[in-house]
Amino acid sequence: MTPEKAYEELLTRMKELALLGNTAGVLGWDQEVYMPGAGAPYRADQLSLLAGLCHQKFTDPQVGGLIDQALAAPGDPLGDKAVNLREWKRSYERSKKLPQSLVEEMARTTSNAQVEWVEARKAKDFKRFQPWLEKIIALTQQQAECYGYEKSPYDALLEDYEPGLTSAQLDQLFPPLKKRLSALVAKITSAPKQPDLSILKRACPIPLQQAFCRRLAEAIGFDFNRGRIDVSAHPFTTGLGPGDTRITTRFEETNFENSFFSTLHEGGHGLYDQGLPSDGHYGTPRASAVSLGIHESQSRLWENLVGRGLPFWKFAFPELKKTFPGVFDDLSLEAFHFAINHSSPSFIRTESDEVTYNLHVALRYDIEVALITGKLKAADVPEAWNKAMKESFGITPPDDSKGCLQDVHWSHGSFGYFPTYTLGNLYSAQFFAAAAREAGPFEPKFEKGDFLPLKKWLNEKIHAEGQRYLAGDLCEKVTGKPLTSDFFLDYLEKKFGALYGV
Amino acid sequence: MTPEKAYEELLTRMKELALLGNTAGVLGWDQEVYMPGAGAPYRADQLSLLAGLCHQKFTDPQVGGLIDQALAAPGDPLGDKAVNLREWKRSYERSKKLPQSLVEEMARTTSNAQVEWVEARKAKDFKRFQPWLEKIIALTQQQAECYGYEKSPYDALLEDYEPGLTSAQLDQLFPPLKKRLSALVAKITSAPKQPDLSILKRACPIPLQQAFCRRLAEAIGFDFNRGRIDVSAHPFTTGLGPGDTRITTRFEETNFENSFFSTLHEGGHGLYDQGLPSDGHYGTPRASAVSLGIHESQSRLWENLVGRGLPFWKFAFPELKKTFPGVFDDLSLEAFHFAINHSSPSFIRTESDEVTYNLHVALRYDIEVALITGKLKAADVPEAWNKAMKESFGITPPDDSKGCLQDVHWSHGSFGYFPTYTLGNLYSAQFFAAAAREAGPFEPKFEKGDFLPLKKWLNEKIHAEGQRYLAGDLCEKVTGKPLTSDFFLDYLEKKFGALYGV
Repeated sequence: MTPEKAYEELLTRMKELALLGNTAGVLGWDQEVYMPGAGAPYRADQLSLLAGLCHQKFTDPQVGGLIDQALAAPGDPLGDKAVNLREWKRSYERSKKLPQSLVEEMARTTSNAQVEWVEARKAKDFKRFQPWLEKIIALTQQQAECYGYEKSPYDALLEDYEPGLTSAQLDQLFPPLKKRLSALVAKITSAPKQPDLSILKRACPIPLQQAFCRRLAEAIGFDFNRGRIDVSAHPFTTGLGPGDTRITTRFEETNFENSFFSTLHEGGHGLYDQGLPSDGHYGTPRASAVSLGIHESQSRLWENLVGRGLPFWKFAFPELKKTFPGVFDDLSLEAFHFAINHSSPSFIRTESDEVTYNLHVALRYDIEVALITGKLKAADVPEAWNKAMKESFGITPPDDSKGCLQDVHWSHGSFGYFPTYTLGNLYSAQFFAAAAREAGPFEPKFEKGDFLPLKKWLNEKIHAEGQRYLAGDLCEKVTGKPLTSDFFLDYLEKKFGALYGV
Repeated sequence: MTPEKAYEELLTRMKELALLGNTAGVLGWDQEVYMPGAGAPYRADQLSLLAGLCHQKFTDPQVGGLIDQALAAPGDPLGDKAVNLREWKRSYERSKKLPQSLVEEMARTTSNAQVEWVEARKAKDFKRFQPWLEKIIALTQQQAECYGYEKSPYDALLEDYEPGLTSAQLDQLFPPLKKRLSALVAKITSAPKQPDLSILKRACPIPLQQAFCRRLAEAIGFDFNRGRIDVSAHPFTTGLGPGDTRITTRFEETNFENSFFSTLHEGGHGLYDQGLPSDGHYGTPRASAVSLGIHESQSRLWENLVGRGLPFWKFAFPELKKTFPGVFDDLSLEAFHFAINHSSPSFIRTESDEVTYNLHVALRYDIEVALITGKLKAADVPEAWNKAMKESFGITPPDDSKGCLQDVHWSHGSFGYFPTYTLGNLYSAQFFAAAAREAGPFEPKFEKGDFLPLKKWLNEKIHAEGQRYLAGDLCEKVTGKPLTSDFFLDYLEKKFGALYGV
């Protein structure tokens, strides 16, 4: 077979695999959004069957042969063909390391575990989730052994989310970040000037929140002809095909922040998904996202760099007042903006703020590494969690729903995922600075509700490229510099320094 | 391989096939309920891939071999094993007659056609749907040729929905039914006593309709822990697994009848699905519905025999008044009951009444036979439809959305489906009479909102049996008589005679 024929055959197979993978995506979305609880065991069997089918088709030795044959003539190393082959090769070598039985058992276990996690969280009862967590950790450790690693089994897991990243790198990254953030937290906590937090508890009827969230998503450019917004326990974004991007949010009547900023966050993920090539490349790496860190940079950019900025609310605040008659009438833009940028130690990561967020991530990173390397038992997670919360923030969660049961990730078996949140924050500030340099100044446009220049820059520089570049290379190409925490920390210190007068 | 081993192997394969089939079910449900329009082409590819995969796995020659091996020791002919083998054998022989390319092309075409049908109906523009209808008819004719038939290609299609039924039987059934129904229509139309139809147009806010519909479904025993209700253009029921039965309805503010009776209708289908064995038999014929005619008998029984009866509304009318404050306060139960049992010539089948309904079906049956036998062209459907409407009812649809574009069936490629509606009506009356004899009288219980004795009888006599009996045998076993139109016509003439004083 010629390299060209081998490549064509691979394209056909991989696009068919994407169809099956996105089928599992629909089942997963439905499970978290609409499926009745009694449907869980059967759904688990379906997802397990599909996961097994995909694994079987992708690890077919013929696929490996075709990749090697096609690699005989890869062409331009940054061309579509070479990019696809590079990523297929990496995934192929990685995925054939897992026996199909392990893939299926993980899919079945996590599908059931998610339902149990929802119940355990509702009941504030870690013990109910513990046996599932134990099983998932054991399976994850098996995965790491199958993948192989040089120094730490955790590195084998990181590879799924941020290819090439190691815990050694993270062990260098987190300590200085913690240090400068802790200093900022201390300044903010002792600042005499503090926002009026009661603003955030004003009752906003949920149907009006729904309407306003839809308006926010539309404003930043989320295309509802090619997507939806629904409700789930833990907000998420899932791309189900070209022209079908779904985001979710959650609502509490006396916590509008939760739904507004979840929507902007997931909307940012959604813009990335909608910005990927939806033409003939769909279903290949050339039309796929680079990494979780880069994905998270897009969500955090819209949620924080844009969505918690003063220019954004110069546009949105009058609309807010109109949407919620009588709720915010007495309020100044400045008081509102200060309130949505409050920073203080808190329990819930997704409700934490830009300053404290990465300290939450650091805590999870430490626990994950300890669990995977066997230094911590699942049964001891609540104690370890509460101890770390006390050390980082000086507070102790009143129950596990506000502690170690708050995140869905472990019930998904997603160990190694959390650190990508911090990478996302660092990338977001570095990208935003580059965008402002090239397509700004944005402020006067944002104030008028015009977010198109920023969206266009992200579409062209990041989304349209798919996986052409690895994360680090993309960052360097687009911003002119390797990833650094400077942009992020400078941004935080400037913004929060001004807000709190510190 | 021993017959026992062959049977075990078949069970494993068929349950896996059911998992895949129900996966397509989730995709189909989502497509009609929540999917953004731009997702349609990709969804069509997914459904086509799954249909091809299922066809391939089911028509694998090994399956045929296993069936024959297992049939060497079938056991009791009404035992679980023999029932499963009987149905697998029939389906296997039938499905291997279709080439996979035809199965896939039909799936792809109908998936796109459904989207186009929605748009054409909205635009009242048959021309937009016509090319899709032409393509579907051509593919359907190909299917009939592949299946083979003795007298009419239409018989080959009927087999999908009501095994064993022929157009010759229907040609005997419809004319006398038409005659006795036409006589009743004439009497009703000229009766001096007529209901106040303005009652049916009273504005009922949709959120309150939603709450009341949920209450109706709960009242008849639909289990929301094991099911959902959503909204779609054309109401339908789909079983997605044990513990996951989904029904849909539709809402118009000034047409409460539409949502109430769609809910009871789909609720009846839902009760059948929830009543099928959900234990180890799930995914086999032993836990599947008998035929569309029997399925429809369950929906019509709850919609009409129960849901349009006076005892039902003695219970529900006070709840209705409470749910819609001020809307029905001035009304007597009798006036309301007469209004929801109005009968008169009308355009829309799903909004027609118990008396005229089967005349709508007869019209569709005639057109379908003419299309499939090549006596009528797709382009001439609007003219043929309007001519038949004039003959049957003396009225002409103002546009195609109220004429030949009103039903989703043809966009699904479901030719041969409509006659099962009439069979369902006949079965429903015959079953209800038997149930009343054995577990009644129901009236005093219905008046108190207690529908459990009827539900229990249906669960035990019909639902729990799965496909143990063929439709005709089931009817005879449960009611003591072969199917006859007497019960249905007697019921109609008695009820409508009393209401209209004719």
